[in-house]
Amino acid sequence: MQHDPRFIIVMGVAGSGKTTIGRGLAARLGVPFHDGDDFHPPANIAKMAAGVPLQDEDRAGWLVTLAVFIRDGLARGQSGVIACSALKKKYRDILRVDARRVRFVYLQGDHDAIRARMRRREGHFMRPEMLRSQFDVLEEPARAIRVNAVAEPDAIIDRIMEKLMEKQYALGIMGLGVMGRSLALNFERHGYPVIGYDPNPHLPPDFPATVVDSPAALATALDSPRVILIMVPAGKPVDIAIDSLKDALEVGDIIIDGGNSWFLDTERRTKELAEMGIHFVGMGVSGGESGALWGPSLMPGGAQAAWETIAPMLRDIAAVTPDGEPAVTWVGPGGAGHYVKMVHNGIEYGDMELIAEIYDLLHRGAGMPNEELADLFADWNEGELRSFLIEISAKVLRYVDNETGRPLLDLIVDIAGQKGTGRWTSQIALEVGAPTPTINAAVVMRLLSADKDTRMLAAARLGGTTAYAGDRAQLAAAAESALYAGKVTAYAQGMDLLQTASAAYGWGLNLAAIVRIWRGGCIIRAQVLDSIAAAFERQPGLPNLLLDGTIATAIEQRQADWRAVVIAGVETGVPLPALAASLGYFDALRSERLPANLIQAQRDFFGAHTYHRIDRDGIFHTEWE
Amino acid sequence: MQHDPRFIIVMGVAGSGKTTIGRGLAARLGVPFHDGDDFHPPANIAKMAAGVPLQDEDRAGWLVTLAVFIRDGLARGQSGVIACSALKKKYRDILRVDARRVRFVYLQGDHDAIRARMRRREGHFMRPEMLRSQFDVLEEPARAIRVNAVAEPDAIIDRIMEKLMEKQYALGIMGLGVMGRSLALNFERHGYPVIGYDPNPHLPPDFPATVVDSPAALATALDSPRVILIMVPAGKPVDIAIDSLKDALEVGDIIIDGGNSWFLDTERRTKELAEMGIHFVGMGVSGGESGALWGPSLMPGGAQAAWETIAPMLRDIAAVTPDGEPAVTWVGPGGAGHYVKMVHNGIEYGDMELIAEIYDLLHRGAGMPNEELADLFADWNEGELRSFLIEISAKVLRYVDNETGRPLLDLIVDIAGQKGTGRWTSQIALEVGAPTPTINAAVVMRLLSADKDTRMLAAARLGGTTAYAGDRAQLAAAAESALYAGKVTAYAQGMDLLQTASAAYGWGLNLAAIVRIWRGGCIIRAQVLDSIAAAFERQPGLPNLLLDGTIATAIEQRQADWRAVVIAGVETGVPLPALAASLGYFDALRSERLPANLIQAQRDFFGAHTYHRIDRDGIFHTEWE
Repeated sequence: MQHDPRFIIVMGVAGSGKTTIGRGLAARLGVPFHDGDDFHPPANIAKMAAGVPLQDEDRAGWLVTLAVFIRDGLARGQSGVIACSALKKKYRDILRVDARRVRFVYLQGDHDAIRARMRRREGHFMRPEMLRSQFDVLEEPARAIRVNAVAEPDAIIDRIMEKLMEKQYALGIMGLGVMGRSLALNFERHGYPVIGYDPNPHLPPDFPATVVDSPAALATALDSPRVILIMVPAGKPVDIAIDSLKDALEVGDIIIDGGNSWFLDTERRTKELAEMGIHFVGMGVSGGESGALWGPSLMPGGAQAAWETIAPMLRDIAAVTPDGEPAVTWVGPGGAGHYVKMVHNGIEYGDMELIAEIYDLLHRGAGMPNEELADLFADWNEGELRSFLIEISAKVLRYVDNETGRPLLDLIVDIAGQKGTGRWTSQIALEVGAPTPTINAAVVMRLLSADKDTRMLAAARLGGTTAYAGDRAQLAAAAESALYAGKVTAYAQGMDLLQTASAAYGWGLNLAAIVRIWRGGCIIRAQVLDSIAAAFERQPGLPNLLLDGTIATAIEQRQADWRAVVIAGVETGVPLPALAASLGYFDALRSERLPANLIQAQRDFFGAHTYHRIDRDGIFHTEWE
Repeated sequence: MQHDPRFIIVMGVAGSGKTTIGRGLAARLGVPFHDGDDFHPPANIAKMAAGVPLQDEDRAGWLVTLAVFIRDGLARGQSGVIACSALKKKYRDILRVDARRVRFVYLQGDHDAIRARMRRREGHFMRPEMLRSQFDVLEEPARAIRVNAVAEPDAIIDRIMEKLMEKQYALGIMGLGVMGRSLALNFERHGYPVIGYDPNPHLPPDFPATVVDSPAALATALDSPRVILIMVPAGKPVDIAIDSLKDALEVGDIIIDGGNSWFLDTERRTKELAEMGIHFVGMGVSGGESGALWGPSLMPGGAQAAWETIAPMLRDIAAVTPDGEPAVTWVGPGGAGHYVKMVHNGIEYGDMELIAEIYDLLHRGAGMPNEELADLFADWNEGELRSFLIEISAKVLRYVDNETGRPLLDLIVDIAGQKGTGRWTSQIALEVGAPTPTINAAVVMRLLSADKDTRMLAAARLGGTTAYAGDRAQLAAAAESALYAGKVTAYAQGMDLLQTASAAYGWGLNLAAIVRIWRGGCIIRAQVLDSIAAAFERQPGLPNLLLDGTIATAIEQRQADWRAVVIAGVETGVPLPALAASLGYFDALRSERLPANLIQAQRDFFGAHTYHRIDRDGIFHTEWE
């Protein structure tokens, strides 16, 4: 271990003893000591000499200089100890050029203790408000060797040496596919050294995490309580991964399943592992490959006892929501995390289908070219529709194929794949009795897209669309409102499904908190989520999102456009099943009286299923003839 | 047994020896003998004397006279033997006033043997064409004591006496709820004495079947191979019923599950019981209480070895289709019978919802009163929409509540119940990848109907419908076409689902045969089924019903009306989700190019899910930014 080049950064507030401890530690390790302040550029030194406090902009160049120094040193096989306050997480993120070979030692002490230490040991003078401001700025590191700043220096250094000898992996990852590797890089970037295992690894040459050749080796390399993240395909592979670990685990260890597992499997696994004293966390991860790498939205649920241990690292790697919070929250017990992720995906299906339908109406129905549509979508992305999916749609519409010079979108086969979570959402919605017609329509349209052969035959036999006869610009304007209304309605269905499941399974889901984390990192992130989160904050038990005052008003204002666009689809023959299903949901929901009385009468007629009356209590049956 | 009053009818063609055997049997039993011909009215006797053949109309009064004679005799505790040719099933059905106490003895012999017997034994002369015509008319009885007409009379009578002593139950029924009791009465009426068991019987005082107090007693009372029909709620009760029988059953016995079981349960039970040598038949039964009593549509599947044994009795009790065939066919192995019944129910959900939506549009949207709607529906029932559901809808619309004098339909609460088969259809369709949007919409609308509280709040907050501004009569006329198109589309989805499942599970379903049996007895019986059956007869592998020439033309002719009605719904705000979903399905199916290319591009953008190109082979991924 001592032959491995590394840098140790001794951090803490002014007066915590960074120089003393840094020098002592460097001597004990036999490596050079550097004072971080020596790397300041002349301008900073002048400011400090003049007593002008440094700003973040001043520090940026200095931190990069230090980071380059460290990186070059490591590359040359050098080691060192650096004293540097590094009070904020973002400073440390810059300095941490290598998760395993750059480590932080945090000299911890509260304000009064540090104040007393300074007075006692050095007779050092510091203005009281200066130390106070250091504590105001301080963001304590989640992962560092943490020592008591007011202990004796030798004792502190002993303790640091001891800690440096310890195993240092923060977590293990089983399954190093696209998502597993991306998450590993994300953890490493945030200072959590990862040890990985994959039965069939295909790793890029520069993959930084240590990779071992068996689950047992992975478990052995981790300290208790172990944290192991499983990133394998849902279903049997998860059970196989868990089984391969069981013998090596101990009471209190934590397994996180970060795949798209079926939530009832997660319920079962949580229970089975709890019997062995192991905490199982079923965690939804959204954001695709790029989200996993740069900040996903995380929906952990299951064994709550694990939360305290894993929260700091999950908060570190998660996306940041528009108001600066990490896009992660504890969802609930059992399979709640995977359930919420499934519903997220169901909404995503609905959202994608609605966008595709509007594209189809404007393109196939109204003849709008891709480039014009790209402008329109880019424009929409500056307004109420602002969202990841609108943003990437604009980019997709604009993308030109290098080889043919044609819009790439036109060359892509019109068959949409699916991995099952949208279908699951529709199936479970039917099971628990929550109406999700927009999501159902989206799933059905993927199925219909797949049956291309029949479509070709039907197109030849049953004719095609009629060109839109109205004003194209007016239709495009109405489409923005229709898409907004359809999207909000899809959310209303998804939120209702969460509420129904929360009641059915006793999860106590916090809808506002869930919507808040969806605003960062995940595929369905969108500006409208602010209004949706606000609606459930105002009224956590809101029976339906469309009943919220702000949302209701927004829909009412778009109602005429919404209807006009659906009618344009019916007239041109461009199918808009998800948009029409949204409108049908809206109209059915606001129907004080639906024609279900006729259905119930029919059921009583042929099957003696009985009915209720509006004018008296009881159960009735009629001999209808 | 000899103290129990009963009548034995000795039947067969002229010259088969009815009088000889009848007299001898009466003497052996010590009861009076009657010649059926003595009961003819004077008009018939005159005709016969003049050599004019009797017609069915002539025989009707005579048979009723005989039936009344038997019924009155039984009521007075009398017994007797009657000689009567009773060549047709319908004659025997009239005479069989009591399934257990009226029994038929059939003197069997082929034309040449009877001819020879007549010559040999009596020197009797009969014109050859007369005996031939008797054989032309003869419908051999499925259930009778069958003896060889050309044996010695004493031997024949010995054999009859022997058979009369045997146990005589044709089948056992476990579960005597509404459906079980109705089927029992149906079997009894057709000459199949039933022995019943119910752990918690609630039987009307005049229930004719013998009821025992344990499953074992039921099994003991039946001959091998036993035929036991289970009519209990789907799920665990079926397993409990089967378990309660297992010890008493023998290899070759037959269990029929006539409930709405989940088809995968039926698959499992078929396998488990096959291991014990017991034939398990999962049978769909449609037609409600009245169908069960007077003629259901029957969809048996499972252990094909059972079919030969149960076919005659199922054919006897089934409804009769318009072309005179019994509404029963062997569907396929495993769970095929229950699967087909489930899809039948899914189509039924779609059909009922479409009718309810049209009612809602015309009533709530266009202000058409119930009485006018009843006339309209009755009128439709004489045209292309002719069907059971339209017929009963007209009756429901016309029904006036005795107590309030108001239309009863207006007093029925608008919450539609469901027992699960529609939901199952949607769930399994998603599972196997068949698009069934109309059925899905119907299931969703039942769910939405149930959430009345939220609807009341939404109605108050989000406003209601707008009165239809167009011509009401024109809308009503268009509605007929729209309903037709929507209905056929729902069938197209149901048939596609059957075809997909047939391929997935290897059932080899015969779609034309299935549609043919749906034309009799079941809830979805409708004139349009003739065209649908014809389509699959012409082309058994038809990829989609809408591609059939006749159907395609019919839909094309109604397309403008269909669109106009959907638009009327969007304009008025009367939700027509099933009708709109049907149109969306139609428009999507005939789309040579759907906007799924955008969805696939989005998936590739955020998840590297790859895509295919229209201009070259291979799998592609793009770095979109």
